[in-house]
Amino acid sequence: MGESNLPVEDIRLSKGISVKDLVSQLANSGFQAQHLGEAVEIIREAKKENAFTFLSFTSNMAASGLRGIFIDLAKNRKIGAVVTSSGSFDEDIIRSEKPYLQGSFESDDEKLGDEGINRMGNIFVPGDRYEFLETKVSSMLAEIYKTKKELTTSELMAEVGSRLNENSFLYWCSRNSIPVFCPGITDGAFGTQLAFFQQKHSDFKIDVVRDFSKIMDYSFLEKKKCAIILGGGIAKHHTIISNLLGGGFDYAVYINSSSPYHGSLSGATTSEAKSWGKIKAGSKAVTIYGDAAILFPLLIASAEEFL
Amino acid sequence: MGESNLPVEDIRLSKGISVKDLVSQLANSGFQAQHLGEAVEIIREAKKENAFTFLSFTSNMAASGLRGIFIDLAKNRKIGAVVTSSGSFDEDIIRSEKPYLQGSFESDDEKLGDEGINRMGNIFVPGDRYEFLETKVSSMLAEIYKTKKELTTSELMAEVGSRLNENSFLYWCSRNSIPVFCPGITDGAFGTQLAFFQQKHSDFKIDVVRDFSKIMDYSFLEKKKCAIILGGGIAKHHTIISNLLGGGFDYAVYINSSSPYHGSLSGATTSEAKSWGKIKAGSKAVTIYGDAAILFPLLIASAEEFL
Amino acid sequence: MGESNLPVEDIRLSKGISVKDLVSQLANSGFQAQHLGEAVEIIREAKKENAFTFLSFTSNMAASGLRGIFIDLAKNRKIGAVVTSSGSFDEDIIRSEKPYLQGSFESDDEKLGDEGINRMGNIFVPGDRYEFLETKVSSMLAEIYKTKKELTTSELMAEVGSRLNENSFLYWCSRNSIPVFCPGITDGAFGTQLAFFQQKHSDFKIDVVRDFSKIMDYSFLEKKKCAIILGGGIAKHHTIISNLLGGGFDYAVYINSSSPYHGSLSGATTSEAKSWGKIKAGSKAVTIYGDAAILFPLLIASAEEFL
Amino acid sequence: MGESNLPVEDIRLSKGISVKDLVSQLANSGFQAQHLGEAVEIIREAKKENAFTFLSFTSNMAASGLRGIFIDLAKNRKIGAVVTSSGSFDEDIIRSEKPYLQGSFESDDEKLGDEGINRMGNIFVPGDRYEFLETKVSSMLAEIYKTKKELTTSELMAEVGSRLNENSFLYWCSRNSIPVFCPGITDGAFGTQLAFFQQKHSDFKIDVVRDFSKIMDYSFLEKKKCAIILGGGIAKHHTIISNLLGGGFDYAVYINSSSPYHGSLSGATTSEAKSWGKIKAGSKAVTIYGDAAILFPLLIASAEEFL
Repeated sequence: MGESNLPVEDIRLSKGISVKDLVSQLANSGFQAQHLGEAVEIIREAKKENAFTFLSFTSNMAASGLRGIFIDLAKNRKIGAVVTSSGSFDEDIIRSEKPYLQGSFESDDEKLGDEGINRMGNIFVPGDRYEFLETKVSSMLAEIYKTKKELTTSELMAEVGSRLNENSFLYWCSRNSIPVFCPGITDGAFGTQLAFFQQKHSDFKIDVVRDFSKIMDYSFLEKKKCAIILGGGIAKHHTIISNLLGGGFDYAVYINSSSPYHGSLSGATTSEAKSWGKIKAGSKAVTIYGDAAILFPLLIASAEEFL
Repeated sequence: MGESNLPVEDIRLSKGISVKDLVSQLANSGFQAQHLGEAVEIIREAKKENAFTFLSFTSNMAASGLRGIFIDLAKNRKIGAVVTSSGSFDEDIIRSEKPYLQGSFESDDEKLGDEGINRMGNIFVPGDRYEFLETKVSSMLAEIYKTKKELTTSELMAEVGSRLNENSFLYWCSRNSIPVFCPGITDGAFGTQLAFFQQKHSDFKIDVVRDFSKIMDYSFLEKKKCAIILGGGIAKHHTIISNLLGGGFDYAVYINSSSPYHGSLSGATTSEAKSWGKIKAGSKAVTIYGDAAILFPLLIASAEEFL
Repeated sequence: MGESNLPVEDIRLSKGISVKDLVSQLANSGFQAQHLGEAVEIIREAKKENAFTFLSFTSNMAASGLRGIFIDLAKNRKIGAVVTSSGSFDEDIIRSEKPYLQGSFESDDEKLGDEGINRMGNIFVPGDRYEFLETKVSSMLAEIYKTKKELTTSELMAEVGSRLNENSFLYWCSRNSIPVFCPGITDGAFGTQLAFFQQKHSDFKIDVVRDFSKIMDYSFLEKKKCAIILGGGIAKHHTIISNLLGGGFDYAVYINSSSPYHGSLSGATTSEAKSWGKIKAGSKAVTIYGDAAILFPLLIASAEEFL
Repeated sequence: MGESNLPVEDIRLSKGISVKDLVSQLANSGFQAQHLGEAVEIIREAKKENAFTFLSFTSNMAASGLRGIFIDLAKNRKIGAVVTSSGSFDEDIIRSEKPYLQGSFESDDEKLGDEGINRMGNIFVPGDRYEFLETKVSSMLAEIYKTKKELTTSELMAEVGSRLNENSFLYWCSRNSIPVFCPGITDGAFGTQLAFFQQKHSDFKIDVVRDFSKIMDYSFLEKKKCAIILGGGIAKHHTIISNLLGGGFDYAVYINSSSPYHGSLSGATTSEAKSWGKIKAGSKAVTIYGDAAILFPLLIASAEEFL
């Protein structure tokens, strides 16, 4: 507050400029560019302080190119836990074998429907991808069921990941013992398969309550905690509420495309989270308003500790 | 497409003008006013056609004055099922006995935190409300556990509702046999109590998978279906995915504050849902961009079939 | 700040409920509903205190049903001055004789272009409307030029208004001596006619600088000042900068659909304006986030002093 | 429309990755990342085709680090004309000698006001900057007045630019004969000085109408035309309306933070512009939703023809 001594600096571009060099200039440039610069500093410090890092994202992000970054973060053990929504499992399982397609926001949706193409913004998912998913998931569930009748979501996703290939973030999370939490596991095509499987095997159960106990444990056991939260919804809220009782986050970066002015959690700011103790008072935290499909790559490419 | 024959009409106000009269003028006025007008027509027709109506909302809405409308819709049996996020249970249980307070978006959040006040946009929730909730929920769970060790979420919320007073929408849903679905039941303070209770009673289980089968059944059993979806997140997605296999909605109104251009489900349009078959091709559907805290009362006050 | 003593109240609807009654409930409901309630109180008090009221709006609003409210406010002398962008003159002149049409946001724009239909959101303007405008404006300019070779924008619009019919807000502003300011007069189809006219009559001049002196005078001469600002752009900024030197507004309501987080003036808040002195420290001011096509009718219908 | 053959590709980051390499990956990634990639291709092709390029921006951008890019584009003659709002002149003149400061969106605005600090989003402008501006502008106007009593805005800004130093985009535009158009010249602190100067020298006149004729001439004279439009308001609209009669743009990139759903020009899409003929049917055009403070540097750093 009050007059800062740091000037707003003009940006100077040059051929071949690196992302890191550009983002270090953006930090002094104003508006959301400044917030992006702050975010880089926050997650770099978190990594230096060995903070346990929760990565939270919505399923549309797993449908986009961001999935490649999620894979590498898991492969290189740069994150401690993942919190996401159920759709992410659909996207990861399918895309580990079959691509999604580049489309357009301005499509004729009824025509797409006729052609069997499902639209997610400007990403197209042909219907045969879901047929693949159904076969794959039902066979995995049958296999898992042979040894375990009741699992938490994170246990289930570790089992699923171990049955996928290296082109999957669930695979790398499983292999590197990074738990993947999903408080709303039924809400997607994967969940539909759970329902169908249970209709035939009534003793097959998913215990979401035990998983909540487990994620809360991290909050108590880990000394320093960092949250990188892309988008909103249940993945965002679950990450922060799970860390409430243990004292809240020490470091937090939100990337939001929602507005805070309608009271939604999706649009809620890191500042609001401090009133709840979900993020610690006095901690380093910033909200960047914009599209994670662009901002998250800039963030990670500029924080070399994550590469 | 092409030239419509309907003119944009100028609005004329008068002292004491009714909401219904104003909204019928807004319908011919342009921009989101036009969408609001379309939405009124859609839900009126749905009601006349006896469509089974899903009401979906995010928890912040249960923290606002909208809760009064939810109560009356349940009391008067104007809706067939509810889909919401877990926080709604916190808000309804607390507010059935203790008020939330009017606050400000521009608060000093660290100071609020010191004073024990949790901020949700411009609504303040004093910390003692959660103490009340913990006592209430843990005692209800203990009681329910005496007769049932394992429940779906909708079964649990019917039990909970029957233990609340008339100033609760869970009460009216329970009394009027309106199922309340919540695919992410653990994600809130109510969920925290579930976790604590289970830590002491390991055979206490919530079966979310069975509830997904149950909600999908409506999709097949009901002839005509209508969705009124306020806000985004898991409640929105769950409502539409649950109706996918049964052929999609015949009528749908979304009230969104998110943008469609970042690929989030929260910002997704009724048009996008048609590519998936979540909303039927050729059905009547509209997305209104704005704050449900204002738009939903206008919608319901103008569609007298819901009063 | 801190704990307010006012509870969030549940909304209760009833058949035939008036806008005023509903909005008085919204005031205690939370999120933007609360801001709308505050706005009603602010402009009612401004009117009781005989504050001089600037009404500012963008041209798309004059293309919508809001134009009817602008007409009545001018006819009933409820506003002191208007600040708008040039497109508003196109919309008012055309619509005083020929309607715009209800369209759709999801149109095929290239096809519309082929059909000679111009799209403004979900409002369609057939191309012949601009032919009418060209004929009308060029003939008015020729007439005005006979007596005045050089005018300020507000003088020009008073002349224009006097040549229109009662179905025009420019007519009522002119008849009731309400000045209409437009700092960017050339930026529209009306402006194109100015350019063409000047190409033939090189001594025809518009003096925008003198108009700026004139609007600033109000800031010094009027005791209490109120701003009702719909949308952003130059109309918004001009209203507040014109009142800076005279000490800023005593009352202000903004209705914004833009976000404040990108540093644009369109998204700037009433709070930010206080740092500049464009709105007085300690004054009553509120920003409502949403679509003016819905919110402005609610505001005026609830503030009976404006009817 | 229909199924595209291009897959959504996963992003792979590496240490030291260049902006160009990252953005070429973003192009295949989805959501706004895809739009950014398209925008790079569009302006590269425009440059190869020697299209005459209009750069349009709002004044807040000139207050941010983007001003450095504007300077270099003008210095290196990469743009043909500039269209902006009046505030840009304030920002450029001040910042050519005195810095703005990095601030915060969450400031106490009344306290800032007491300290004489003006807030523009998270950029602070200490009050003494405006004292500097007043002295500078009034002395420049006095000098210009000695030789010219009446100027168009673009003539005036060429004169002003020639009196500034190399740390100014107005300087480089003036030196390289790049016209700077501003249809709303009075709307800012620079405009206030125009008003004060004219109060003492009543024969001093700004002719905005003649400037509109001049900018429209480009539309007819240039063979291929490209628009790069940052933000909305009058600068955006003026750029496209000025090119309407000459057949519309061949290439266009918008970077918007506003939504199209409220009918504002600020939120209007490149698609909508095609219905008007402001952008040619069949031309290459894209709208990127997000913050130009981040997106514009990515765009220009990736389109090496502009460096």
